[in-house]
Amino acid sequence: MPDPSTAPALSPFYRPPALPRVYVGGFWGERADAVAARTADILYERCVAAGMLEQINPDLPVPPLRIPFAPGRTLNMQMFWDSDIGKMIETAAYSLSRRPNPGLEEKIDAIVELYARLQAPDGYLNSWYQRREPEKRWTNLRDCHELYSAGHLLEGAVAYYEATGKHRLMDIMARYMDHIAARFGRGAGQDRGYPGHQELELALVRLARATGKSRYLELARYFIDERGQAPHFFEEEARRRGEKPGDFHFRTQEYNQSHRPVREQVKVVGHAVRAMYMYSAMADIAAETGDDSLTAALEALWQDLTATRLYVTGGMGASAANEGFTADYDLPNDTSYAETCASVGFAFWMQRMLGIAPDGRYGDALELAAYNGALAGMSLDGTQFFYENRLESVGDHRRWRWHECPCCPPNLARFVTAIGRYCYGEGEGGLAVHLYGESTARLLIGGGRQVTLTQQTRYPWDGRVTLTVAPESPCHFTLSLRIPGWCRKASLSLNGASLDLASLTRRGYAHIEREWLPGDVLQLDLPMPVERLHAHPAVRQDAGLVALKRGPLVYCVEEVDAGAGLHRLVLAPDAPVNARFEADLLGGVVSLEAVLAVEEAASGAPLYSTEAPARREVNVQAIPYFAWDNRAAGGMRVWLRRG
Amino acid sequence: MPDPSTAPALSPFYRPPALPRVYVGGFWGERADAVAARTADILYERCVAAGMLEQINPDLPVPPLRIPFAPGRTLNMQMFWDSDIGKMIETAAYSLSRRPNPGLEEKIDAIVELYARLQAPDGYLNSWYQRREPEKRWTNLRDCHELYSAGHLLEGAVAYYEATGKHRLMDIMARYMDHIAARFGRGAGQDRGYPGHQELELALVRLARATGKSRYLELARYFIDERGQAPHFFEEEARRRGEKPGDFHFRTQEYNQSHRPVREQVKVVGHAVRAMYMYSAMADIAAETGDDSLTAALEALWQDLTATRLYVTGGMGASAANEGFTADYDLPNDTSYAETCASVGFAFWMQRMLGIAPDGRYGDALELAAYNGALAGMSLDGTQFFYENRLESVGDHRRWRWHECPCCPPNLARFVTAIGRYCYGEGEGGLAVHLYGESTARLLIGGGRQVTLTQQTRYPWDGRVTLTVAPESPCHFTLSLRIPGWCRKASLSLNGASLDLASLTRRGYAHIEREWLPGDVLQLDLPMPVERLHAHPAVRQDAGLVALKRGPLVYCVEEVDAGAGLHRLVLAPDAPVNARFEADLLGGVVSLEAVLAVEEAASGAPLYSTEAPARREVNVQAIPYFAWDNRAAGGMRVWLRRG
Repeated sequence: MPDPSTAPALSPFYRPPALPRVYVGGFWGERADAVAARTADILYERCVAAGMLEQINPDLPVPPLRIPFAPGRTLNMQMFWDSDIGKMIETAAYSLSRRPNPGLEEKIDAIVELYARLQAPDGYLNSWYQRREPEKRWTNLRDCHELYSAGHLLEGAVAYYEATGKHRLMDIMARYMDHIAARFGRGAGQDRGYPGHQELELALVRLARATGKSRYLELARYFIDERGQAPHFFEEEARRRGEKPGDFHFRTQEYNQSHRPVREQVKVVGHAVRAMYMYSAMADIAAETGDDSLTAALEALWQDLTATRLYVTGGMGASAANEGFTADYDLPNDTSYAETCASVGFAFWMQRMLGIAPDGRYGDALELAAYNGALAGMSLDGTQFFYENRLESVGDHRRWRWHECPCCPPNLARFVTAIGRYCYGEGEGGLAVHLYGESTARLLIGGGRQVTLTQQTRYPWDGRVTLTVAPESPCHFTLSLRIPGWCRKASLSLNGASLDLASLTRRGYAHIEREWLPGDVLQLDLPMPVERLHAHPAVRQDAGLVALKRGPLVYCVEEVDAGAGLHRLVLAPDAPVNARFEADLLGGVVSLEAVLAVEEAASGAPLYSTEAPARREVNVQAIPYFAWDNRAAGGMRVWLRRG
Repeated sequence: MPDPSTAPALSPFYRPPALPRVYVGGFWGERADAVAARTADILYERCVAAGMLEQINPDLPVPPLRIPFAPGRTLNMQMFWDSDIGKMIETAAYSLSRRPNPGLEEKIDAIVELYARLQAPDGYLNSWYQRREPEKRWTNLRDCHELYSAGHLLEGAVAYYEATGKHRLMDIMARYMDHIAARFGRGAGQDRGYPGHQELELALVRLARATGKSRYLELARYFIDERGQAPHFFEEEARRRGEKPGDFHFRTQEYNQSHRPVREQVKVVGHAVRAMYMYSAMADIAAETGDDSLTAALEALWQDLTATRLYVTGGMGASAANEGFTADYDLPNDTSYAETCASVGFAFWMQRMLGIAPDGRYGDALELAAYNGALAGMSLDGTQFFYENRLESVGDHRRWRWHECPCCPPNLARFVTAIGRYCYGEGEGGLAVHLYGESTARLLIGGGRQVTLTQQTRYPWDGRVTLTVAPESPCHFTLSLRIPGWCRKASLSLNGASLDLASLTRRGYAHIEREWLPGDVLQLDLPMPVERLHAHPAVRQDAGLVALKRGPLVYCVEEVDAGAGLHRLVLAPDAPVNARFEADLLGGVVSLEAVLAVEEAASGAPLYSTEAPARREVNVQAIPYFAWDNRAAGGMRVWLRRG
């Protein structure tokens, strides 16, 4: 067990508010409604259909191997079904806090009882290992997702407690965490292991916050600190299994970010989701402990990611081979892996960076990932999903009803339904607004005084936000408003009087410190002209191309609007691009319209010609990227030719 | 055995001259010298190093499996080692007719003796099946290259006979062919099989021509006619092996072009080399038999290939998955498979189309493939090779010393050393010049009257060709000169008097029928301005790009000349491009020079910006595509951005 004398305090940085205290309407409200009304139940049904509940039910015979092992691999996706169940529970929890669903709640309660009965006397809890391979418990942390599964189930448990007040699953998981804390650490007789797929670290911070017990934070810190230390745990562990460490399927420990201690990491490498979850935990721990050495590493990693390895959509991880990063400026569009989970994880990380201190760079990145790379992963009705997110398709990339590795649908669903926690931050001396959107939040300052913030806005379709500040009684605090980096001409007024935004703004947030009175009204105007974005010239896949963005939204062109052969479209640098709200399009979106040139050839034209292709003008409509593939199948492009 | 009454005649269409009667100098002479001086010996040494000679030597123990089977595959590359030896022998044969090499000739003679002793009493000859799997003989024509290996060994045998007069190997192979003819056919007790990988068909035509025995042509015609007939042989054969026909690794019989009878094929599909070899045989048979139904199919296939599926280099087969064709207009550059063998096979086919009748379209395609897609497959010194030919590389695509599947090096080597056979055609009533280049050819008209044609030219660096016609005695015949399709302003004179090229030219050949006298001199001028080629707008991978071509040569830009990040270069439509012969560059080539714009970013520039990248002017040199990757490693691009 951690020594309480070295355990860090739970310190008073910005934390997300408890979800039930934020009601989100407008844009995100519609998305959250779709999840609560459909996705949450779908996730449960798909877990049942996959056979997951049979695996956790000790009364049933051990079910057969439903997902075979790929040749030469020691992991199959059935091994981490507990994680899928955990994220399903988490989604259900958030959905319940939005909209009662007694049927679903009953089913979750039943699952909790199954886990209660499955849990071993020593606290251990993993349906794969208990039911199928008990002798292999804790023998392959590197590959087999054992601690990862624990993490997701723990997150689900904490969320279910926060949403419903029911703490049975959280108690079960806390007992399991105590088991894990006894097993892993630097003490005599302990294994110096840590997760092969990071996730448990950030879940432990949530448990620490929910229970107020710092030993869970301490365990998270141990996992983070121990990672990548010599001798390398995964190499030692491989030898104990009788394997050569070099026979690792992914060849390098960069894959799981254990190639060196985390504070020495400066390049974003390996499996993208693992990286995002790890950075999230590092940020949580930095916020809770004030550990500047973690913050410095995170700053370097953020710089590396955003300067060289991030898609314009906030997607990341170009390659399917490692589900992760390749080389600087290597950002292919038609084969972009850009896993939905990676963008969701990026949002997790950015939220936690904002927990250390408001910083517009992180807020902008959170917004970018949320509205684009992440949100694209689910159909508008919440029933179909993308695992990989292309930035260009010739029509062969479609949403899935389900995926053999179903990590993404519940990951995005839990994010969307918890969006209220990402909009605001509660600090010791003030409040922060990170994301704009119609919402009402009853926030706490220093854990005590309550202030109701109400946003009236059509954001992201329009950049005008009316923010009503209603403390229970007059109250002195700092309200920090994010001024988006994409906005060049923001303006702000308080009770009708213009404020000098430049003098109020530091690091992308306007800080307004005053005695707030009930009924104070801030008016924030964030003009949203259409922007043309050009990639750094080192990005060969975007050379000569331009992307359209308006406010937080990246746009794309779809074949269903523009016809086949989207590569034939050319946007002139000076062509006007007009934004217009279309109530009947995709549930109501702002579309962009412009006159483009389209290259054409006569029938029977030769394959190669000394004549450049003829061009004619064509009206083209672009739609928000997140909303693509919700109509007829066809091609899509984010990056358009310019010239 | 075929019924002689239905055997076709060997008819008098244009045929390639016997190689010893053509001496090639200049450009192709240097390439052939490199092969004769180095590659021919290298090929032998690599066959030895691979262990191939142990497999054919009945005195040695059966060697171990040197190349393991890939999971789920019934073919491995060791199974068709006879084909590698066959192509090695063919290369040696042509090299010997250029340059004595007693050491190599002795080694080939020794291999012939090994095959003589290996051959079974019934004539069967295949080192894999005889030595390793005798019980599986003739059980899997679809996958296992048994008839393919026979074809290459047969081609080597014929070539060795033609170059050296030694007919021992050809006799051995003729016996084997008689065995095959007895086994396969439509008669009682025969199997209605045909090659899974086409090759034997065209080899049989060569044997028929070398021996004058029409039964070998008849066997080739049977293989072509039977292909794709119902019931499908490969399906029946799979059932006999106890397999489901649908479990075929490549899923569709399009892979081996047996999805329907050959005369009903209108789309170029499947494995590219198989297709080219099959079309070559079809053209040979059409030429020999006058079968217009084959010619019509070939015309349709040629149209399809050149209108939708051919790289600008004459490469083809975009995908590694099937080593072949994908979809119309799908021509990726940075992943182009474009196997060297496929371009060599394209040259084979085009040569055989010219055997039916001179047609400039086919001559142009022969020239394109020879100078670009094929020739790029070998380093200038003849020691290193490309199997896949990219049209764009970021520096990670390099020549191989050898390849586990070493089909390409000897394929290209035999083509280069036999180039004299591709330059000319001998017909009943005249002669044709298909390719220009310094050479002297003693050609025969109607198999009898000899005419010596001498080309003096610096082609392909310069388009002036002085052609001296020297019949043994005054002689009436038609001399057909190819007028390249890329040349807009060709001019021709005879003994100093200008000829009206337009009235002489039909289908891309100028036909000059007259009484030719010793010392007649034709002067052909083929101006070679630099051309900008644009792909059909349906080719998405080439959208907004332009390729440079001069005469028969496609050009490319290399990092060693232009610096890293070739995607940053932009060629303006009106930028002058100047050609200059550089004696010290790559053994002497015409390079192209132009001022291009290069996009640059300041250090620390963001990944995405509303500002378009800054441009500055830069002098860039382009080199012939065939000569790339002969200097320092680095990126390469054929298609340059225009704008």
